[in-house]
Amino acid sequence: MLSPTARTTVTRGRHRAVDDRDQLVALLQDALVAHLGVVVGDHPLVLPTAFAVDPDGPDEGGSLYLHGSVAAGWLQRALERDVCVTVTELDGLVTARSAFHHSMNYRSAVVIGRARRVEDVAERARALDLVVDHMVPGRAATLRPSTRRELAATAVLALPLAEASMKVRAGAPVDDPEDVAAGVWGGHVPLRRVAGAPVPDADADQRVPEDVRLRAVDLGWAAPRAG
Amino acid sequence: MLSPTARTTVTRGRHRAVDDRDQLVALLQDALVAHLGVVVGDHPLVLPTAFAVDPDGPDEGGSLYLHGSVAAGWLQRALERDVCVTVTELDGLVTARSAFHHSMNYRSAVVIGRARRVEDVAERARALDLVVDHMVPGRAATLRPSTRRELAATAVLALPLAEASMKVRAGAPVDDPEDVAAGVWGGHVPLRRVAGAPVPDADADQRVPEDVRLRAVDLGWAAPRAG
Repeated sequence: MLSPTARTTVTRGRHRAVDDRDQLVALLQDALVAHLGVVVGDHPLVLPTAFAVDPDGPDEGGSLYLHGSVAAGWLQRALERDVCVTVTELDGLVTARSAFHHSMNYRSAVVIGRARRVEDVAERARALDLVVDHMVPGRAATLRPSTRRELAATAVLALPLAEASMKVRAGAPVDDPEDVAAGVWGGHVPLRRVAGAPVPDADADQRVPEDVRLRAVDLGWAAPRAG
Repeated sequence: MLSPTARTTVTRGRHRAVDDRDQLVALLQDALVAHLGVVVGDHPLVLPTAFAVDPDGPDEGGSLYLHGSVAAGWLQRALERDVCVTVTELDGLVTARSAFHHSMNYRSAVVIGRARRVEDVAERARALDLVVDHMVPGRAATLRPSTRRELAATAVLALPLAEASMKVRAGAPVDDPEDVAAGVWGGHVPLRRVAGAPVPDADADQRVPEDVRLRAVDLGWAAPRAG
């Protein structure tokens, strides 16, 4: 069960809040980009970022991992005050019978909390592996270890999943009965993210590694049959 | 030319900043969801939202329009302090030769500024039409006018596009020469958003209106040939 506080409780469209931690983790594992909100001076700054989730991580409720350059301006701000990480997957356009009821189908999670800078060597390595494996499952194990210099240039932050909420909208529009009775057309248009064929670098082996091939297929690439 | 200030100047990866307003507007017209950041008390809150852009709108640099329920908690906060609207389109996974150089291909715009509540009746109506037409071009003109009650329940905000920055990453990974020389595989996996077949409501005409059909095709739906 999610434990919403006053900060993450969904106050609009409460019926779309989801009290299911498995569904939250599933969305975080499905999505590829998070939007990180930090307060910088007197204004918010929202940045897209890669991330990973470890439902069994050491933070309360599990850990959401972010990483960035140690020189990034937002990094220090993200440690000084609470941050917000929002993950949204767009699932469709809701083409209702009136402008008012036009909407989108989506799954969205909002996580608020104080980020912790991960200093433990083993946890840092694991978190960075999770970020790579979040993009392409299994890939981290196929790569050389990070160098000392690479690790020194990279900050890893962990955000507890304790304070989180989720909203989901799916399916048909919710229209006014008068508009339905008047015979106005309504429906929805499903949307999904799909991969194209993996593109090997010009100076790389033109055979795509199995982990990358499988990930592209998993993301909807219609791979040609082996000939 | 974009006019970045200290707040939106891209400080990391400066070579990915884009000084081209046409490219900014193109991204804003291509993307369907924005992430709105507001400061609520002592923490940021980031919410996904529909939006529209009017490059010739009355605000400096053009107008980005948001709408929401007048009862939404974030709305008052969004007017009291500066907000940040970030729009990101994910274009691919960059499967580099090392964990460190793994990345994503994307286009992302960050707009910071003070939102203006749109009170003018004509501008409000136009902004709401733009939000609908942003989802399905031409659809607003096919719908009944909004009722007085619907308009009273809906707040429209306009954010100037004056203070904006953009980052774009595309193509192959940037790898260390040693990893390339060692023959490690590197490449990327293109990603795009595609529509499925429009789904008419059970109690609606099963023929999909032309505007919705064209939008689905435009978003990648492989429509069957008319038989």
